[in-house]
Amino acid sequence: MKLNQKVLVSLSGGMDSATLLGIACQNYEDVEAVGFTYGSKHNEWENECAIQLANYYQVPFDLIDLSEVMKGFKSNLLKSGGEIPEGHYEHESMALTVVPARNMIFLSILSGLAVSRDIRQIWIGVHKGDHPVYADCRPEFINHMRRAMHEGTDGKVDLYAPFVCIDKKGILQQGLKIGVPYKITRTCYKDQPLACGKCGSCTERLEAFAFNKTPDPVEYETEDV
Amino acid sequence: MKLNQKVLVSLSGGMDSATLLGIACQNYEDVEAVGFTYGSKHNEWENECAIQLANYYQVPFDLIDLSEVMKGFKSNLLKSGGEIPEGHYEHESMALTVVPARNMIFLSILSGLAVSRDIRQIWIGVHKGDHPVYADCRPEFINHMRRAMHEGTDGKVDLYAPFVCIDKKGILQQGLKIGVPYKITRTCYKDQPLACGKCGSCTERLEAFAFNKTPDPVEYETEDV
Repeated sequence: MKLNQKVLVSLSGGMDSATLLGIACQNYEDVEAVGFTYGSKHNEWENECAIQLANYYQVPFDLIDLSEVMKGFKSNLLKSGGEIPEGHYEHESMALTVVPARNMIFLSILSGLAVSRDIRQIWIGVHKGDHPVYADCRPEFINHMRRAMHEGTDGKVDLYAPFVCIDKKGILQQGLKIGVPYKITRTCYKDQPLACGKCGSCTERLEAFAFNKTPDPVEYETEDV
Repeated sequence: MKLNQKVLVSLSGGMDSATLLGIACQNYEDVEAVGFTYGSKHNEWENECAIQLANYYQVPFDLIDLSEVMKGFKSNLLKSGGEIPEGHYEHESMALTVVPARNMIFLSILSGLAVSRDIRQIWIGVHKGDHPVYADCRPEFINHMRRAMHEGTDGKVDLYAPFVCIDKKGILQQGLKIGVPYKITRTCYKDQPLACGKCGSCTERLEAFAFNKTPDPVEYETEDV
């Protein structure tokens, strides 16, 4: 039986937040999702997946446009920045793809929306694979942000980040069990229709599928993957 | 001698952030200010003051528009909400003017901007008079948010909230000593050219000027103040 509580899911259209949405919908009756446009190179592609995922799970979805708000931000992930680096996340070059305070901004806006909609739980899909490069995916950040969100809303919201101590392999393992439609997820950082298979984000995704001995249903531009 | 560090000030155009800007400019060589439009009834009036204050202190100023981002938020302070209540802040009715997570959203965006501009210090003028009603002005929130901002940016920003344990009377006392131009500040919550002198915000301001035995240079619509 599903729990009768409201959940607000931060949905990017990637495989982590898709899995998060799948878990939320399996366990809760009343799930809503919110995505953000913030000027990243892959924004249109991931937003399209977020819309399709929300349709698939039949949950209300809002897309909030932050591209003007964040236009002064510096990052190679953004259209205004340099090239997307290739290779593993651990490589120093991947630090160029950090969008400073991105999750903090998303969680703050979700806090205000959740209070306005009388939703207590806010879910985000940050995970262990992001820790080396992305500071706002680490447990230290999540723990303080959870407290800030709680205190700053007079105790009205709780942050839940169930993947914060597991990696993409573990997330995929959970998602495959509940049939998450990974065909309609977008992981690649590049601004092109097909996933490149070479950026840090693609590399990590492909390793997760290989680990789980499952073919990735997404099409890649290279046959080497 | 002024300190050679960069400071980013959250500037609303009210008397607290005006004082904050005055203190920053007195002590630091390199000060920038950012304000936010978020759909509040008094936004145009306070933004106009913020622009004038930035001109007065000769600091770069950016106005970030969040009105679309926060259009689903519920609060009587917003144009989409009900009437602004009158009387003291302590009154329960003033809780209707809470804009959920407002300071959290401002501080998150300022964090991303500060990292992008290589600024370490972020200053905000939250104060003790706001504690009874506004959860995101209390020390408990500020302390956790400070840590979240630090952790979430890989230690790149520090939050400074020098008024968090003093009230408007104490803030004004500091500001009068350094000649803050209170004539070009806006405190009233209402959507009208002259300050009403009756809302919680005006009431608190007038008490601060009376306490400091100084006439308020701002014109009010009523002569009873």
